[in-house]
Amino acid sequence: MHIAKLPGLGPRSARRIALHMLCNKEAYMPALITAITEAYNSVTECNICYNIDVRDPCHICVDNTRQDDVICVVEGSNDLWAMEKAGFYKGRYHVLGGVISALNGKMPCDLNIESLYDRVKSNSVMEVIIATNATIDGQTTGHYLCDMLQGLDVRISRLAYGMPVGGELEYMDEGTIALAINNRQKM
Amino acid sequence: MHIAKLPGLGPRSARRIALHMLCNKEAYMPALITAITEAYNSVTECNICYNIDVRDPCHICVDNTRQDDVICVVEGSNDLWAMEKAGFYKGRYHVLGGVISALNGKMPCDLNIESLYDRVKSNSVMEVIIATNATIDGQTTGHYLCDMLQGLDVRISRLAYGMPVGGELEYMDEGTIALAINNRQKM
Repeated sequence: MHIAKLPGLGPRSARRIALHMLCNKEAYMPALITAITEAYNSVTECNICYNIDVRDPCHICVDNTRQDDVICVVEGSNDLWAMEKAGFYKGRYHVLGGVISALNGKMPCDLNIESLYDRVKSNSVMEVIIATNATIDGQTTGHYLCDMLQGLDVRISRLAYGMPVGGELEYMDEGTIALAINNRQKM
Repeated sequence: MHIAKLPGLGPRSARRIALHMLCNKEAYMPALITAITEAYNSVTECNICYNIDVRDPCHICVDNTRQDDVICVVEGSNDLWAMEKAGFYKGRYHVLGGVISALNGKMPCDLNIESLYDRVKSNSVMEVIIATNATIDGQTTGHYLCDMLQGLDVRISRLAYGMPVGGELEYMDEGTIALAINNRQKM
């Protein structure tokens, strides 16, 4: 069953979805077939930042109103979307397509790292913001990128770590509390 | 029923606990009576930092190995315990006993704020770390404290805000992402 292979769906909920579709064949299936076919044919990877979009280069790479001299490096398109939803960042992106992970056999050469180096080197990029996740693999990848870009004339920064908005000390893990004290800021 | 008034217990779970105790009278009740009576008689508030402890001044205030020149201001003893569990901070504390909240009718005079001012003024305190929660009321209280301490010769800092450890961009709220970009740090 192909539906059960989708993330977040177990065999039971997949069966439920399948049965619901079969019982309401006309209402769901033709529209779903068209939508998936359309997406399959039109969605592609941007050859500059590796974001997925219906156009190549993607709408962020061709947007003239955005800053050209900052690149924010994210693990996947989902992270890019999260950043865009926050609406705070107005520079460009670079999607790695994953993280370096010994456990999952992901090596630097499997990711869009070389293209990042080339982009930073050949364009007038002032700052690279490393926005990999605050997980072990995300941090490892961040440090790898930092080492790699060190030679180039570019400022390298990473996202701030600390208390999330609305966070209460009582429910924070020890690592976050330690980071929040360590990186405390002048008021 | 008094048990149902305890935090985290609804009427059903309170009933279950009460019935369990009544059915196993000898096993639970005498020990519980002794424990609660003992705690009632021995636990008191520290007159320096307002932490709760079986001794006054509390064991943190009398600990000579801790730094005397840093005071970390927290909302409650639960936050102090969270900080201590993280084990990173080695200074003193000051427990406010709540936050300023118009909604709950909590005014600055209801909190241990004057005593904080006196402590900072009369001791050689170099830094006050404001560790109120990252909630609206926590932040308001933090700014109130900052304004109040401004006149004294002391460095005022607050916990860092940003991504918590293990945090993934995809699941972060917009506010946290915006703060994390805004407070990004050089690598």
